[in-house]
Amino acid sequence: MPDPSLPSAKSVIHVDTRGAIILTEESPETRDSRGIYLPNHVEPVSHIAVDVGGSLAKVVYFTRSPDPPPSPQSVAATNGTTTPGDLSDIATPINVSPPRTPSPGLGTRDELSSSPSSSILRTNGALTPLALDPAHDPDHLDSLGALLRQRTVATQHFPGGSVNFMRFETSNIHACVEFIQALIAHSAVLNRVPLEQMRASVKIMATGGGAHKFYEVFRSELGVEVRKEDEMECLIEGLKFITMIPDEVYYFSDEVIRQGMAAQMAGPSPPGEMERPSPNPPQYAVTFASEPTPQLPCLLVNIGSGVSIIRVDEDGKFERVSGTSLGGGTLWGLLSLLTPATTFDEMLAFSQQGDNASVDMLVGDIYGQDYSRMGLKSTMIASSFGKVFKQGGVDKGKFRPEDISKSLLYAVSNNIGQIAYMNAEKYNLDRIYFGGCFIRGHAATIATLSYAIRFWSKGTKRAYFLRHEGFLGSIGAWIKNISEDSMQ
Amino acid sequence: MPDPSLPSAKSVIHVDTRGAIILTEESPETRDSRGIYLPNHVEPVSHIAVDVGGSLAKVVYFTRSPDPPPSPQSVAATNGTTTPGDLSDIATPINVSPPRTPSPGLGTRDELSSSPSSSILRTNGALTPLALDPAHDPDHLDSLGALLRQRTVATQHFPGGSVNFMRFETSNIHACVEFIQALIAHSAVLNRVPLEQMRASVKIMATGGGAHKFYEVFRSELGVEVRKEDEMECLIEGLKFITMIPDEVYYFSDEVIRQGMAAQMAGPSPPGEMERPSPNPPQYAVTFASEPTPQLPCLLVNIGSGVSIIRVDEDGKFERVSGTSLGGGTLWGLLSLLTPATTFDEMLAFSQQGDNASVDMLVGDIYGQDYSRMGLKSTMIASSFGKVFKQGGVDKGKFRPEDISKSLLYAVSNNIGQIAYMNAEKYNLDRIYFGGCFIRGHAATIATLSYAIRFWSKGTKRAYFLRHEGFLGSIGAWIKNISEDSMQ
Repeated sequence: MPDPSLPSAKSVIHVDTRGAIILTEESPETRDSRGIYLPNHVEPVSHIAVDVGGSLAKVVYFTRSPDPPPSPQSVAATNGTTTPGDLSDIATPINVSPPRTPSPGLGTRDELSSSPSSSILRTNGALTPLALDPAHDPDHLDSLGALLRQRTVATQHFPGGSVNFMRFETSNIHACVEFIQALIAHSAVLNRVPLEQMRASVKIMATGGGAHKFYEVFRSELGVEVRKEDEMECLIEGLKFITMIPDEVYYFSDEVIRQGMAAQMAGPSPPGEMERPSPNPPQYAVTFASEPTPQLPCLLVNIGSGVSIIRVDEDGKFERVSGTSLGGGTLWGLLSLLTPATTFDEMLAFSQQGDNASVDMLVGDIYGQDYSRMGLKSTMIASSFGKVFKQGGVDKGKFRPEDISKSLLYAVSNNIGQIAYMNAEKYNLDRIYFGGCFIRGHAATIATLSYAIRFWSKGTKRAYFLRHEGFLGSIGAWIKNISEDSMQ
Repeated sequence: MPDPSLPSAKSVIHVDTRGAIILTEESPETRDSRGIYLPNHVEPVSHIAVDVGGSLAKVVYFTRSPDPPPSPQSVAATNGTTTPGDLSDIATPINVSPPRTPSPGLGTRDELSSSPSSSILRTNGALTPLALDPAHDPDHLDSLGALLRQRTVATQHFPGGSVNFMRFETSNIHACVEFIQALIAHSAVLNRVPLEQMRASVKIMATGGGAHKFYEVFRSELGVEVRKEDEMECLIEGLKFITMIPDEVYYFSDEVIRQGMAAQMAGPSPPGEMERPSPNPPQYAVTFASEPTPQLPCLLVNIGSGVSIIRVDEDGKFERVSGTSLGGGTLWGLLSLLTPATTFDEMLAFSQQGDNASVDMLVGDIYGQDYSRMGLKSTMIASSFGKVFKQGGVDKGKFRPEDISKSLLYAVSNNIGQIAYMNAEKYNLDRIYFGGCFIRGHAATIATLSYAIRFWSKGTKRAYFLRHEGFLGSIGAWIKNISEDSMQ
């Protein structure tokens, strides 16, 4: 039952998500940064949301444009359930637009762009705060409808607009700051107003740990108002919003989980499974939630550098009930020292080629067979990395980076799945959403988390994944302030 | 309430543990292999128990000797609660006998001895199976008392005898086999019987995964009967027995936990704390359970290569309810690749000198302060190893092995503590015993596990530790068969 003492994400969402469409990506790196076109959202917003975590700073902002969005064929990343294809569909849409061609009008961006102004120039969209509308005069405002009729906008905008997503490294926060500066400057040009006037009508909504740490940096360098928002509240608001977008939420069917786990226990990923599209597609499909349904109550497991576990009641009241320090930062840190990989995607690619059985100690290695009395199959992992240590020293070159990567990916994912399950059981929740920048649409990770939940719950609970998984906090910070803007 | 479908460790323990004394150790390596002198146990036993795990094979056997045990002063490792001293008292007795001097009569052994016969020669004790007693004739046996009166033993034995403990690497199981061969041969000599007659009166009780895997090796190479015992049953029997030995069980007072955690959060262990005895001993003390009390119901967390979590009801019925693959094998494996250390103790020594804050991402690193709304202090670990990864590559030589060791020791220990707590909470158990070869009396590990349990349970649950932590399974295998021998 709702605990009145718990903080609650109370705001009503004022964004009309009818007809929302997730856009194509420019490149594989942006797989969770695809823009979302909202054809019915007509309230101009004037703020930029930034969620600064331990490793990554996530930015969300809304733009409008004179031009129509790309045609539906290339706009729709997927429609409902995928036809049998490979799991990289989650990352790469079926109809792939030519990479790196500017999408006219609506926003997709390269992740970790090193050249902010070139990113901006790739879009014709701009911030369009209501405050800049010459016809807008708060003293004459009597209703939202009257406001819209009174508007004569500096530029004619195509109906709706897009939510845009960008990512930067927290250790290089100034790249993020420069990007926002360029966005504001670019918007001033498009709106034909002086920069100072543009700044006066823009706010930064900052959340995540860095909202505190970098508050002064944002405020002084951008010259705009900065407001701090609570991280957990933003995560929950973001979850509630993003799960209303068709095809945002996805999960593995039991068939997919079985196939994925068979691959896990058999060693390296069998050829043809979990690869890019091929003439012989695998016999499973990812299920997308194309008709969003009520999501609460649920458990949210946000996997960033570390992991936060938050339970959310039916009415949106939430509580951080648990977490673990064995998160994305742990895995990437270990693999950066133990393998030649230097990026997340290199590490995940290594793991796909690996055979964890050369590094992990399996039940069969200890028992020579199943330990059936206790329900432990011989292929289950008894000790992660358990084959590595040898008294008197080990030949450090002996273990392949591929096998090391797979072992540690499983170790971290299985552990998160187990702790998530135990909390879901404790609080009697059947839906477990995974957010955060860790998963990256990686098939083996999703399969491992899905399997852990299905296994421990004996099939009564389910893991759900989000295409904009890393942006829950920034989306929530953006959403929380819409109501305020629309009343200006 | 007891579940009749659960396996139960039913046997009644026939070993008289009154006056049991834990003996001195020969060297720091044998800190959990100290013999136990049982002055009132007069039933000769004829079997050797072996628990073969993923990494280590643990051996338990009982010997008698014509000579008395060493004087009480050097025999008693500790008496009740330690006076303020350092935590290494758990490893090193207050009254340290000169290292490596043979203790006349009763058994202590070097761990991982490479020369089995020299180990045997250091003791005058021997197996003394009842079957070899010339006066023993099963047809004349009417009661145990009569049996004892009728005995004229080949050698006069000092009352009671000792339980002895030895350890070998599973990957070198033949060293274990050779040791047992030498023990049997030596006992034949002392008992003045032919080797074949000795063999006919000795049994091997084998448990652990390797009981299945190495059954044939033991049987054929030793020429004795080998019986397989269920691993979980042996763990529980071993736990029930060993907790009856005075001063076997110990735990940290809340004061010790606070000190230990203050040291953890402050960086490297402050000088003077957690070090060997010094003129200014720390102001805390470890509490030993000198008056053993009922231990059931409880949760047993056995940390070997991997971790098994077993709940035990009041009546001894047990069930393996959980586990984790992130165990001792994981930590030693990771540290063997990430540091120059080649033994467990080197790795633990590294960790004592480390400052995990240079490797771990703390809450304060992300927030710049506490995240008090969620109860997260700035010194808490948000992401283990979270400072290591940098996009574009990392200077692998930059991180000290000491800091790496401390970080990963905390990561593994905290995780086990958390999962253990969640299971204790689920099954409403307040006592959590930690067994297995992982802990090794290491102060920081014990503090971390103790703190995790106290923290998560808000002080309602407690972690208990065992001085013979790695030998639960082998002790259980030994105990389970005593009743049979005593009726021969």
